[in-house]
Amino acid sequence: MERKVDRYCFGADIGGTTIKLGLFTPGGEVIKKWEIPTRKEDSGAYILKDIADSIMNEMDERKLTKDNIIGIGVGAPGPVDRDGVIYKAVNLGWGVLNLRQELNDLTGLPVRAGNDANVAALGEMWKGGGEGFKDVIVITLGTGVGGGVIIDGKVVTGSMGGGGEIGHIHMNDDEVEKCGCGNKGCLEQYTSATGVVRLANRRLKADDKASVLRGRDFDAKVVWDAVKEGDELAVEVAEQFGEYLGKGLAILGDVTNPEVFVIGGGVSKAGSILIDYVQKYYKKYVFHASADAKFKLAQLGNDAGIYGAAKLVLE
Amino acid sequence: MERKVDRYCFGADIGGTTIKLGLFTPGGEVIKKWEIPTRKEDSGAYILKDIADSIMNEMDERKLTKDNIIGIGVGAPGPVDRDGVIYKAVNLGWGVLNLRQELNDLTGLPVRAGNDANVAALGEMWKGGGEGFKDVIVITLGTGVGGGVIIDGKVVTGSMGGGGEIGHIHMNDDEVEKCGCGNKGCLEQYTSATGVVRLANRRLKADDKASVLRGRDFDAKVVWDAVKEGDELAVEVAEQFGEYLGKGLAILGDVTNPEVFVIGGGVSKAGSILIDYVQKYYKKYVFHASADAKFKLAQLGNDAGIYGAAKLVLE
Repeated sequence: MERKVDRYCFGADIGGTTIKLGLFTPGGEVIKKWEIPTRKEDSGAYILKDIADSIMNEMDERKLTKDNIIGIGVGAPGPVDRDGVIYKAVNLGWGVLNLRQELNDLTGLPVRAGNDANVAALGEMWKGGGEGFKDVIVITLGTGVGGGVIIDGKVVTGSMGGGGEIGHIHMNDDEVEKCGCGNKGCLEQYTSATGVVRLANRRLKADDKASVLRGRDFDAKVVWDAVKEGDELAVEVAEQFGEYLGKGLAILGDVTNPEVFVIGGGVSKAGSILIDYVQKYYKKYVFHASADAKFKLAQLGNDAGIYGAAKLVLE
Repeated sequence: MERKVDRYCFGADIGGTTIKLGLFTPGGEVIKKWEIPTRKEDSGAYILKDIADSIMNEMDERKLTKDNIIGIGVGAPGPVDRDGVIYKAVNLGWGVLNLRQELNDLTGLPVRAGNDANVAALGEMWKGGGEGFKDVIVITLGTGVGGGVIIDGKVVTGSMGGGGEIGHIHMNDDEVEKCGCGNKGCLEQYTSATGVVRLANRRLKADDKASVLRGRDFDAKVVWDAVKEGDELAVEVAEQFGEYLGKGLAILGDVTNPEVFVIGGGVSKAGSILIDYVQKYYKKYVFHASADAKFKLAQLGNDAGIYGAAKLVLE
């Protein structure tokens, strides 16, 4: 008689400073989450070894064998193709590296790998703002703007791991400042944390209109707080923000016809008021077939990456 | 001993005037193609019956039984979801209709259905300009602008069959004329056959610059012929066209990271010179990860629909 064993999966989210790790049930319950430092010395040569050691140590402590583990999913900061090869991770010092093969060699466990932003999007679909849907676009408004496009439950990886670069869609022909990517007028330049500040500073310089933002330092949170207080100038900034993001998401909606957009990242902490501004312009610009897409806030915060990584091995 | 039977599939492409039909081998060889009229009377009540009769008649003549037929694929002019339900086909008089179920009831054969533009895109991937690739964006520049996004070999249908509406992505905030969809500034308004004429007429009105286009009627072909002859004003129009389409495709490239863009439809008969203008601006606006996507011309013309429909049942 065959005895049924408990089965689990690991998710690893590799960041520039720390690697987040999680042990999950196949149903998406997190058993444990923890972090280890990202050792970037020697071109990141120890990163996968550290992950393997930490996971195998966790298995030992819990008396789990390979039979108990479905696999390890990994999110990494760079383009990762469908075979688990990362092409470059500047932050980690990596060049081309077969994450799936290398981590499999180190652990003997099945491995799946993806781009960190795409993997986090998958996490939000699985157990976050997109739970219950399978056609989902996740957009993360943080220091940069990233995200992932999920179609019929699968992340759009792209032919060379370059799918989901939502932050770098071109939105403004008149932009004079360069984006970090080298182009001018990327969505990220107006909707990231610094993008919101850029919009506010430009609005402040345009004339002398009174505003609580005038004559002080501020970040994106302060701008959104001013919007909530009804500061007229801040509200104009929110309209601009909503128009950029709503227009960009409308284009993605036309092409992929999602059920739901999930908005996350630090800027999204502004909450539902942010969605109101985005959805207003989304509806203005989108083709009617996709006008009814829902808008939701992300729910998993920084844990989205480990959730999505774990989900990768369940597919 | 089991005797191997020859296997075939049918593709049907339902247009407003005619229904194109084809009999294919699973390898994509066309055995026969023919057309029947589209009978739109009584809200299109006879269309599926006519298709079924024509196909079963063809089977009888060739002494093919159900064992020989893998299935029937159908492309229809409206949003079709993953289950083969079409939500509306204004041109045919149809409301909501389960194409898969109804045609299966009529023939006893497996049926798959999709939106006609998406299905034609699949055809181009299978045996046209995108042959050999599986991450393909097809854009068709005709009376309107349509297309399909193919990811890992599958068409992006969208949650409600509204995927691939490439013609209606918003490209111009300053547009004053309305697109057929009701919005203003859609890609279609500048890159369809009438779109090219619109750009040329606007350029002609801007000043008195000499041009072979001045003082005469012209269509998109005449404009492109003038571009090839080096007419300076026409070349400026080609640059504008290239900027609109290149910028739009760059956004799609950022999000889906395709291997190849395939450009079809009447306007694309201009040939490789059209691709040169589009690719120039594509490279200007796209995120570097997707800069190396190839550009090719569509090859199947009006047969793309029956090819793609046949391919639907092979998936």
